[in-house]
Amino acid sequence: MTQPSIVTIRTPCLLLDEGKMQRNIDRMAERARSLGVGLRPHLKTCKSIEIADRVVTRRKGPATVSTLAEAEEFAASGFNDLLYAVGIAPQKLDRVTAIRASGCDLAIILDSLEQAEAVAAASRASDDPIPVLIEIDSDGHRAGLRPDDAQLVGIGKALDQGGAKLRGVMTHAGGSYDAAGADRHAEWAERERDAAVAAAERLREAGLPCPVVSVGSTPTAMGARDLTGVTELRAGVYVFQDLVMAGIGVCTLDEIAISVLATVIGARPDRGQVFVDAGWMALSRDRGTRNQDVDQGYGLVCRVDGRPFDDLIIAGANQEHGVIEVRPGSDALMPDLPIGTRVRILPNHACATAAQHAEYRVLDGGTSVVETWPRFGGW
Amino acid sequence: MTQPSIVTIRTPCLLLDEGKMQRNIDRMAERARSLGVGLRPHLKTCKSIEIADRVVTRRKGPATVSTLAEAEEFAASGFNDLLYAVGIAPQKLDRVTAIRASGCDLAIILDSLEQAEAVAAASRASDDPIPVLIEIDSDGHRAGLRPDDAQLVGIGKALDQGGAKLRGVMTHAGGSYDAAGADRHAEWAERERDAAVAAAERLREAGLPCPVVSVGSTPTAMGARDLTGVTELRAGVYVFQDLVMAGIGVCTLDEIAISVLATVIGARPDRGQVFVDAGWMALSRDRGTRNQDVDQGYGLVCRVDGRPFDDLIIAGANQEHGVIEVRPGSDALMPDLPIGTRVRILPNHACATAAQHAEYRVLDGGTSVVETWPRFGGW
Repeated sequence: MTQPSIVTIRTPCLLLDEGKMQRNIDRMAERARSLGVGLRPHLKTCKSIEIADRVVTRRKGPATVSTLAEAEEFAASGFNDLLYAVGIAPQKLDRVTAIRASGCDLAIILDSLEQAEAVAAASRASDDPIPVLIEIDSDGHRAGLRPDDAQLVGIGKALDQGGAKLRGVMTHAGGSYDAAGADRHAEWAERERDAAVAAAERLREAGLPCPVVSVGSTPTAMGARDLTGVTELRAGVYVFQDLVMAGIGVCTLDEIAISVLATVIGARPDRGQVFVDAGWMALSRDRGTRNQDVDQGYGLVCRVDGRPFDDLIIAGANQEHGVIEVRPGSDALMPDLPIGTRVRILPNHACATAAQHAEYRVLDGGTSVVETWPRFGGW
Repeated sequence: MTQPSIVTIRTPCLLLDEGKMQRNIDRMAERARSLGVGLRPHLKTCKSIEIADRVVTRRKGPATVSTLAEAEEFAASGFNDLLYAVGIAPQKLDRVTAIRASGCDLAIILDSLEQAEAVAAASRASDDPIPVLIEIDSDGHRAGLRPDDAQLVGIGKALDQGGAKLRGVMTHAGGSYDAAGADRHAEWAERERDAAVAAAERLREAGLPCPVVSVGSTPTAMGARDLTGVTELRAGVYVFQDLVMAGIGVCTLDEIAISVLATVIGARPDRGQVFVDAGWMALSRDRGTRNQDVDQGYGLVCRVDGRPFDDLIIAGANQEHGVIEVRPGSDALMPDLPIGTRVRILPNHACATAAQHAEYRVLDGGTSVVETWPRFGGW
C-alpha cells in the first residue's frame, strides 16, 4: 500500500514533522543534563501518548500536566510520576486521590492556607499523603506566593503537620514569553531560580522538608545559565516550537515541528487575497505575535514542502476561512496559488493550534504521512 | 437517582440553558415566517445532533454546514437537505458525491470558473448533477463575486451546461457583525438582499435557472424588514447568542443560552485578581468584543445561577487559568469569591467557545444537569 501524501489527504489537518520534533526533544534533554537538573516535560502541548513516550526521556518518568484529564490519560498508559501544575480546587481532590490509588505518583500545587487545609484533610481521609509543591510567584504575572510572603511557612506547616506531603516549591515565569533574546531569557531564568530557591530556603530554615525546587518555561529553560539549588526544569512548547518562540529568539522558523495543512478554495485578486480552508477553527484564535516585532497574523504561510513564502501570512480568519495576504509594508508579491493548491501554515502558539485538532498526521520529513497519532482534550 | 448539579460537577464545562435556546430558536423561526422566507439554520455553531433536531424546525429539513465532517454526521443521522457554505476545493468533490449518494441532498458553493468546471466534471463522472449556489459578495468582506461581475453568467453556464445543477445564489454579509443597532442591521440585510437578487436576475435574464436566493447572518436575519426576492435565510449563532451579539444589540445578556462553568482556584487580592480553572482552552482565544463599546475581555462573569456580577470580566487567560478582574474604569467592587466558588462565564463568541468542548451539560433552567449532549468537530 502506498503511504498517503500531504498532496492528497483531507484538509485542514495538523502535520507533525517527527524529525524536527525529535531534535527539539534532544536539545532540551541535553540542556537539562548540562545544567545538572532533572527534566519534567509539560505534556499540555502534545496531549498525546505517542508523543509523550518520546518526550519523556526516562520511560514513563517525570512529566507535567495541566488538567486532571491529562493526568488520568497518562496514568492509564503507565506514566507514574506526574505534576498537575494548576492550583488545586478542593472539589478535585477525589480525582487526585483516585489517580494516586491507581499507582501514579501525582503531585499537585497550591498557594493558600485554605487549599493546604483541604489537601491535608483529604490526605487524612484517604490515608494517602498527597504530595504538594507550593506555587511561588517569580514575576508577578499570575498565581503564587512571593518568596517572602508571610504565609509561606504556615502553609508548609499546614501540609507537613496536617497529613499531606510537602514536596517542595515550583515557579513559572510566564512573563518570559514577552522577553526577546537569550540574555533576557537568562535573566528571567535567574529570577525563577532566585524566587524558588529563596522560598525553599525559608521552608528548610523552618525545619520543613523541601526536596523539590522546580522551575521553568521554554524560554527560561533555553536561556538558563546556572540552576544551582534547582532540582528540575519544566517546559512544554519546545517540543513543537512556534512563531511566538521564534519571535523571541528561542528557535528558528525551521525548527517549528507542527503546521496546519490547508487547501486554496478561492481568491480575490482585486483585494490581494487568497482564501484557504483553514480558518480559526483549524488555526485557533491565538494572535500571540500581535505585539511582537513581526506580527504573523494567524500564521506564516509555507509551500507544501515546508519552505516559507516571503512575507505571506494568514491576515484574517473566519471559522473555516483563512485569508492569505502579503504582510502589510512588504513589497513581496502574492505567489500564484490556484484553486486546490496546498499550503502549510506555521502556528503562532503550538498549544492553542494543536488543541483544535483530534490527531497528528506524522511526516517522515518529506510529504508522506507515515503515522496518525490521536490527541485528547477535555478536563 | 438525584440529578447532578452545577454546584458539584467537574469544571470547566459548557452549560446550555435549554429554555433560553428554545426561545432563541422560536424567535428566529417566527422572523422567517413573518418575512415569508424559508429558514436554513447554520449548524456550525452547535455541531450536535440533539440541538440540530431542535433548531431545524422542519424535521431533518434544510440546514447549513461549514465542514464536510458536519455534512457527513448530519447526513448519517438523517438530515436530507444540507448546504456546505464554504467555497469548494476540487479535492473535496469525492466526499460531496459520497454524501449525496447516501441520500442527502447536499449542495455546495463556489465563485470561480475553475471550480465550476471541476464540479461539472465531477457531476458527469458520478452521473449526479451536484447542486450549486454561486457565492455573491455583498459587502467586500471575503469571498464571492460582485453581482455585476463579468464572470457570473459564464460560471452559471459552465455549471448548467456542464452537467452540474445551478440551484441559485447565496451571500453572507459578515460585515454586519461590526455594525450596532437594528437600523444598521436592516441596512446590511438590504445590502445582502440587493446583491443576491441582482445576481439572481442576471442569471435568469441569461436564461439560466436560479430557484434559490439565500442570504443571511444572525444580525441581518434579526434586522431584515423586507426580503422580497429572497427565498431563504441562513443564520447560526442566534441559537445560543453571545456577548458579541449582545454588544451590537442583537440580543440581551439574559438571552445568551451557553456559558462556561468554572471554579475559583486562587486569588491575588493585592492585584485585584481571582483565578478560575477556565482559561483559553475552555473559553477560546476569541476576543470578539475587543473593539466593541464594552470590551468583555475573555467573557463576562456571572453567579452560579446565571446572574451577572457588575463589571466582572475574565481580563486575561492562560491555557488553564482565567483571571477575573473588575472591568477597567469601573468602580464596582470585587465580590467575595473564596477558593472553590463556582461561577459562570458568558462567551464572546458562541461558535468559538462551544468548539473548545466535547459536550453540552444541559440545564433545566435551574442548576440541575438534566442531560449531556455530545458535540463533534473535525473536518
